[in-house]
Parts: sequence; structure tokens; C-alpha cells
Amino acid sequence: MDKIDRYTVGKNNLERIDAMAGQDVINSLDGNYEDVGKYIIEFAFGDIYDRTGLTLQQREMITITSLLSQGDTEAQLRVHINGSLNVGLSEEEIIETFIQCIPYVGFPKVLNAIFVAKDIFEKNK
Amino acid sequence: MDKIDRYTVGKNNLERIDAMAGQDVINSLDGNYEDVGKYIIEFAFGDIYDRTGLTLQQREMITITSLLSQGDTEAQLRVHINGSLNVGLSEEEIIETFIQCIPYVGFPKVLNAIFVAKDIFEKNK
Amino acid sequence: MDKIDRYTVGKNNLERIDAMAGQDVINSLDGNYEDVGKYIIEFAFGDIYDRTGLTLQQREMITITSLLSQGDTEAQLRVHINGSLNVGLSEEEIIETFIQCIPYVGFPKVLNAIFVAKDIFEKNK
Amino acid sequence: MDKIDRYTVGKNNLERIDAMAGQDVINSLDGNYEDVGKYIIEFAFGDIYDRTGLTLQQREMITITSLLSQGDTEAQLRVHINGSLNVGLSEEEIIETFIQCIPYVGFPKVLNAIFVAKDIFEKNK
Amino acid sequence: MDKIDRYTVGKNNLERIDAMAGQDVINSLDGNYEDVGKYIIEFAFGDIYDRTGLTLQQREMITITSLLSQGDTEAQLRVHINGSLNVGLSEEEIIETFIQCIPYVGFPKVLNAIFVAKDIFEKNK
Amino acid sequence: MDKIDRYTVGKNNLERIDAMAGQDVINSLDGNYEDVGKYIIEFAFGDIYDRTGLTLQQREMITITSLLSQGDTEAQLRVHINGSLNVGLSEEEIIETFIQCIPYVGFPKVLNAIFVAKDIFEKNK
Repeated sequence: MDKIDRYTVGKNNLERIDAMAGQDVINSLDGNYEDVGKYIIEFAFGDIYDRTGLTLQQREMITITSLLSQGDTEAQLRVHINGSLNVGLSEEEIIETFIQCIPYVGFPKVLNAIFVAKDIFEKNK
Repeated sequence: MDKIDRYTVGKNNLERIDAMAGQDVINSLDGNYEDVGKYIIEFAFGDIYDRTGLTLQQREMITITSLLSQGDTEAQLRVHINGSLNVGLSEEEIIETFIQCIPYVGFPKVLNAIFVAKDIFEKNK
Repeated sequence: MDKIDRYTVGKNNLERIDAMAGQDVINSLDGNYEDVGKYIIEFAFGDIYDRTGLTLQQREMITITSLLSQGDTEAQLRVHINGSLNVGLSEEEIIETFIQCIPYVGFPKVLNAIFVAKDIFEKNK
Repeated sequence: MDKIDRYTVGKNNLERIDAMAGQDVINSLDGNYEDVGKYIIEFAFGDIYDRTGLTLQQREMITITSLLSQGDTEAQLRVHINGSLNVGLSEEEIIETFIQCIPYVGFPKVLNAIFVAKDIFEKNK
Repeated sequence: MDKIDRYTVGKNNLERIDAMAGQDVINSLDGNYEDVGKYIIEFAFGDIYDRTGLTLQQREMITITSLLSQGDTEAQLRVHINGSLNVGLSEEEIIETFIQCIPYVGFPKVLNAIFVAKDIFEKNK
Repeated sequence: MDKIDRYTVGKNNLERIDAMAGQDVINSLDGNYEDVGKYIIEFAFGDIYDRTGLTLQQREMITITSLLSQGDTEAQLRVHINGSLNVGLSEEEIIETFIQCIPYVGFPKVLNAIFVAKDIFEKNK
């Protein structure tokens, strides 16, 4: 029963936060890969995103910061910059989040993230 | 004049956010190293932390996330976990920030940050 | 029911693989940190380590390679070098695993891991 | 004589393990770049891959784990996922290797590797 | 006045070092992103590149080494490999710089940088 | 014969560049670990450091930049900051090298390297 719960809870959170972009990732994880999608739903969105103590806006702000800071995460930044907008962060807050990282990771990683955001924001217009 | 402004603004922000722990870093950067301390004050704390658009609590949450995610930043996490408390984040919010990173960077980097936080929180009691 | 299962399964795997060193990590995650220990047990050791398709020796070989390659994981290497010995990898296989990484990550990360292993092996004598 | 040996040994290992994909990398390293190809052959494939103590399957499993864990290695993952198949790892074992890394590096790096593998496996059909 | 100075100094250094490739980055940082361009000019090129103690050739050699070593910096390597040529480093010195990194970061990161350089050098012919 | 050559060449370069600090690393790699020391001598110091095209000062400047930029390399920075002094870089040039990295990797990694250098310089007085 718990398994159904975690999966259902995670699926709902995924839809609410990452919407179509998140669902596309899960859909691409079919056949031999479907357990990976299941873990993303159950663990990341069922266990972690469902916790109390931080708002979804705070959680997405943390997520895009973590993705920017580790590098090589363009695909994931695309999903979670959209997710950040979905939960109510403004374009300005997203850019400001990236600017706050400059002293800690330097310009290259921040520029990489900004150009992903810029591309998303322009397509949304 | 601008130079005085940026330095003074940064110094005030540094004192307000990182307090003694931040000042200790600057003090250790004397002699041949003092330009590095100047850049931290002018650029990180004068230019970036002084921007509008995010609260200081949000900025510190972003900073500790960025430090956790890149790894090898124990000394800086010590300064900014204290800074997070100084600007009003609770111990629970700091731990919750670290937990939100688990799906994105895995357990080792999160455990490293949690053990630094735990050590700080226990000393503060 | 599933929750009990995943936790129990994970706890058994943790004991079998990481033994005391793993239990020490979980024990240190008490109070506000205990959910992190729960996720390590349920997700890492209940979900992932319990999968079929690879032996525990292969899983530990992958784990120590991943820890070496990301860096800043001395504490986790200590647990999983011991774990590697527990599941039947020899000291020679562990060192050989690290040597295989030299062309891919360079000497510094490999030396860091080797000195952790050397320290463990000498204490075990 | 040793130089001929190391180069010949390495060339044979490269052909056996990475086949055409590896040879393509070496071929692209012509002119001013040919010493880099020489070092890959002599050191990576002549010295390291030729060691005893681990099977070639184990060595490739370690290699793709190291590539996944450091990130920004799509081109090298392409060569060594093919290499893993060449030395006898199954598609399932390769995916399982990547899944084992989730608790240690998080989902983004694992997803990046899985999508490279998925693309290779589909082209091989 | 200092602000004008730092910006003007930085702009001059940017033009001298990175020429069109650097200006393209700044131009792409318009609207909500222009503060990032301002910080690159004022801090990176106004404060840091304008320091004494190292030649511009040494500074670019350090920059491309730092970009190669952190990974996921193809766009920035493009700018600074061109910048390295602009300040007088030869193609051979750039490749030699990358080769020197092999023992410290391994082959994958070095190959990534070499293929960016090779592409630039071939277009310059 | 080549093997003797590469080892002898590497050993001479190691002694000339890293002196006692480098020899200590090799000495600690005894018994099961001695092949790692052999590869450091033959490949890093026999093949790479012995190349033409860059001065030893340039090679050490590249090395300490690469170590700083990847992080978690305190032990290796100790060896190569000493090596940098041995081949004729001044304390000021070493610090200046680290300062040049600030825009590319941020303050934390640079501060880590500076505090290692500061410790070495103070002990040398």
C-alpha cells in the first residue's frame, strides 16, 4: 500500500511541479529503464518533494542552484527552470538565483545556466 | 568614491551576514593576500549580496546549496551555515535545504554538509 | 507494509555490506537528521542494493569507483572500502579498481583513494 | 623495444575493447595532436588495461562508472559503452551499473549516461 | 568615477583579449541579464585581468587550464582559446598546456578541450 | 631499454621539480602500491614533464591551476606549490595564479588553495 502511496504522491508532485517536461523524462524511461523513472517518482517526488519545512518555490530554487553548481546538467536545468516557473518563481528570481552563485562557482557555470534560462524565457513569450 | 562605497557596503553586509566567521576569513587574508579579501568584500558582499530581488535568507540558502553541490567546501560551509543562522534561517530549514539536494547530488555530498551543520548546531547549544 | 519491507530489507543489506562502519553513519544521524538515515536505508540499501543483475561485489566496485571519481568523499570511501572487503573483494582488487581509474580522472583523485585504502588495510592487519 | 611493446600491446587492447569507436578517436588525433593518441594507446591501453587482477569486463564497468561520475563525458561514454558491449557486458548490466550510481551521484548524472546508452542500444538493434 | 574606470578598463581588456568572441558573450547578455555582463567586464576584466604580476599570456594559459579542469565549459573554452591566440600564445603552446593536464585530470577532460581547439584552429586556417 | 629510460628520466624530473615532497609520495607507494608510483614517475614525469614546448615554470603553473580547479587536492597542491617554488616561480606568482582563477571557479576553491600556499610560505620563512 505504501508503494502505491509513494508512487501516487510522487506522480502528483511531478505533474504539479515539472508538468509536461517532467512527464517527458519519465515517458522516455520505458522498457529496461522504467525502474529509473519509478525511483525519480517515488524517491525524488514522493519522498523528498513531499516533505514539509520548505515551500515548493524554495525547493525548486535549491534544485536549480544544485544543478547549476555541479555542471553538465543542461537537460535537467530545462526541466527545473520550467518547474520553477510552474511553482511561481518569476523569471527575475530565477536569474537572481543564478547571479547569487557567481562568487561561489565563477562565471562559466552561471553563464551556462543563464543561457538555458534565456532560451526558455524567449520560447515562452 | 565608488570604491569606498562598494567596500563599505560589502563590509557592512559581511558583518551582518557572516559576522565573526566571515571577519576571521578576511583577517587571515593579510599581507600578500589582502586583495583576495578586498574582492570578497567588494564583489561578493558589495555587488552581489547587496542586490535586490531576493531576501538575505534566500541568498544564504542558495549559497549553502552551491557549496554543498560543488564539494570540498567544508570551511566555506562553516562560514555560511553560521551566516544562514545569522540572517534568520532555522536549523530545520538548513537541514531541509540539504535534504532537498539528495536526488540531485546523491548522499555523500549531503552527508558531508549535514555533519558540518550538526557540529555547528551542537556547539551553539 | 511496503515501508516496513523496504526499511527491513535495507537494514539487512546495510548490516551485511557495510557492517559496523555503515551502522555508525546511521547512528550519527539521530534527532533532526534521522530521515536522512532512513533514506539511506530505504532507498540506497533497500531499493538499489537489493536489485538483481549485479553481484554485491560488483555493486561495491562501482560504488568505490563513483566515490573516487567525484572526489571529496574520504568518509564514504572508508565505509565502502570496508564494505568491499566485507562482500569479498580482495585488497588487490580494490587497489586494481583504483588503478583502472588513473587514465579517466588522473593521479590526484586516485592517490587520495589509495591512501584511504592503505590506511584501512594497515589497521586491519 | 619497450616502446614498441607498449604501443603494440596498447593498440591490440584498444582494437579488442573499443574497436572502431576507439580507433576513430585515435585517427582524429593526427598532426599536432598525435602524441595524445600515443599516450592513450601506450599508457591507458598498453599499461593499465593490460594489467592482471581484473577482467576486461570489470575494467569497462569501472571505466563507465568513472565517466558517469565525473560528468561532461558524453563522447567518452559513447566509446566505452560500446567497449563494454564488446568485452561481453550485457545491456542490462550496463544499465544496472548506472542505476547503482544513483545514491552516490544523484539522478542527473545517471540520466545523462542512461540516455547515451539508450541511444547506442537503439542504434544497435 | 571608479565605476566608470573599472568598466572602461575591463571593456578595453575584454576587447584586447577576447575580441569579438568575448563581445558576443556580452552582447547576448542584454535586458535582464546585463548585470552579468557588467560583472564580467568590471570584475573579471577590470579587476583581475588588469592586475600586474603575470603577463596576459600567462593569464590566458591559467584560464584555459581552469576551464578544462572543471569541465562543461565548451563555450568558455571557445572564447578563451581564441583569447589565448589573441594575446600571442601559439597553437602548439595551447595544445601543450592541455597535454600537461593529462596526469592531473585524465584523458576525457583533455580530449574535450583538444577537440574544441582543433575545431578552432581548423576554422582559422 | 626504453623502460629504463622513461623511469630514469622521470625520476630525475621528479627530483628536480618536486624534490623531497615528491619523493615522499613515491616512498609511501610501496608494496602493493608501487606500480602507482612507477606510473607517476614514468608517465607524469618521464613522458609529460619531459616534453618540450613549455618551460617547467609554465608546467607547474598549469599543474597548480588544474589542482585548484578540480578541488579536493590539498595533498597534491602541497607537493606542487613546493614544486613551483623549486622551478623558480615566486610566491607572488603562485598567489597571482590563484587570483586569476577567481572568475572561473569562484572564491571557495581559490581560498582553499591560498590557505595551503600561505601555510607553506610561512613554514619556509
